[in-house]
Amino acid sequence: MSAERVYGLHTVRSLLSRAPQRVRKLWLQQGRHDQRVAQIEALARASDRPIERADAARLRAWLGEVAHQGVMAEIDALPPLREDNFYARLAEAADPMVLALDGVQDPHNLGACLRTADACGVLAVVVPRDRAAPLNATARKVAAGAAETTPVVTVTNLARSLGHIKEAGLWIVGADAGATLPARDVDLRGGRCLVMGAEGAGLRELTRRSCDWLVRLPALGAVESLNVSVAAGMLLYEALRQRQAPPPQKPK
Amino acid sequence: MSAERVYGLHTVRSLLSRAPQRVRKLWLQQGRHDQRVAQIEALARASDRPIERADAARLRAWLGEVAHQGVMAEIDALPPLREDNFYARLAEAADPMVLALDGVQDPHNLGACLRTADACGVLAVVVPRDRAAPLNATARKVAAGAAETTPVVTVTNLARSLGHIKEAGLWIVGADAGATLPARDVDLRGGRCLVMGAEGAGLRELTRRSCDWLVRLPALGAVESLNVSVAAGMLLYEALRQRQAPPPQKPK
Repeated sequence: MSAERVYGLHTVRSLLSRAPQRVRKLWLQQGRHDQRVAQIEALARASDRPIERADAARLRAWLGEVAHQGVMAEIDALPPLREDNFYARLAEAADPMVLALDGVQDPHNLGACLRTADACGVLAVVVPRDRAAPLNATARKVAAGAAETTPVVTVTNLARSLGHIKEAGLWIVGADAGATLPARDVDLRGGRCLVMGAEGAGLRELTRRSCDWLVRLPALGAVESLNVSVAAGMLLYEALRQRQAPPPQKPK
Repeated sequence: MSAERVYGLHTVRSLLSRAPQRVRKLWLQQGRHDQRVAQIEALARASDRPIERADAARLRAWLGEVAHQGVMAEIDALPPLREDNFYARLAEAADPMVLALDGVQDPHNLGACLRTADACGVLAVVVPRDRAAPLNATARKVAAGAAETTPVVTVTNLARSLGHIKEAGLWIVGADAGATLPARDVDLRGGRCLVMGAEGAGLRELTRRSCDWLVRLPALGAVESLNVSVAAGMLLYEALRQRQAPPPQKPK
């Protein structure tokens, strides 16, 4: 199993709380003794994880110029989620959100989508085996730790997979430049799979036909399209907004 | 005045319509004769712009692997918008939206924010002179043409500039990880300046104190924060959603 480095108070604390067995070693910056670092150290001790100190220069050499906040962990990489296990997990989850990427081939974009998906509580990110960006070092770096918490499911046939996702009770919502329906007018509460197309090309025809709704996102400017991770962020934002909004008042 | 290359049907058509004098030369891909390309060719002819043909390999050599859709233009770079001209423009605009970036130092992030700002109809992007990413070739490339349509205003002192923006009638809304008020609960119709902080560090104290509201964006995951262009996209999405939503029903 390969090792990955993750950093930042929130990311490391979250991993130590949710999956301490994946943490091989915790690194703390020398001279950092604030309360949040102490809490992370206590979590690591409680799970018997080795702890070492490193100076700022060493952390910088390992991580580059990032906001590591004095904490880094070496962890077992999150194993890919198998397609059958994914469907089983979907069936058990309450109102899950899934993000599917149709033909996103740039590892930067995959990483950025993973990070956004993680922030929005997405259960998993689905990518087709062909025409897909690999989850490589670049994608992991851009994901800023999210590749170690939000699983990627590689599927052989995206249209067929969307069929299985529907069978698990989710509705499929595709973002499409040609759609006329604004995202806000679609009910995004409940189990939903949001599908983003490749930049330029958009959704493939088979993918489009698998969607229950096609929705549009803002495009007021001179430039052709949004970056796919920004577009995913807008659609996920809309879904969360609807989920967190108070239910509409009914007439008495 | 420096030259820039922009591409894509929508971007090039938009420039030929809005600012044909900035287009030095139009390049069309050999063998592309569809209606949308013909429309762009007619626009260029109407403004007496030189037109040349290039084959796909040449366009690829100039632009890399992008969705150029068979059209490219060499244009005069958009000149920076001077601070005093910006305030004058603000005072004339109806319900303008402005995006201010407090300490965003990565040119990738500046470019991504510009692209998102353009898609959402932002009047200008404000950056402080110190601690700001330069609008260099990297930023322009990531902006995918938006650097040639959405102006960047470099200001000496961001807090003072936010004061001037307020005087022009805009309200200042900062995105802040520590805020408890969801963005959806703030009225984002009317003139608004949305302020995003640097990744990791967030808004500076002086900037924070200049804000009329501090709002939070989704953060459900294990990873510390959203990418700044994704966060900007979510807040701009929320503003557009409110602006485009039908007015709330009043009791009869």
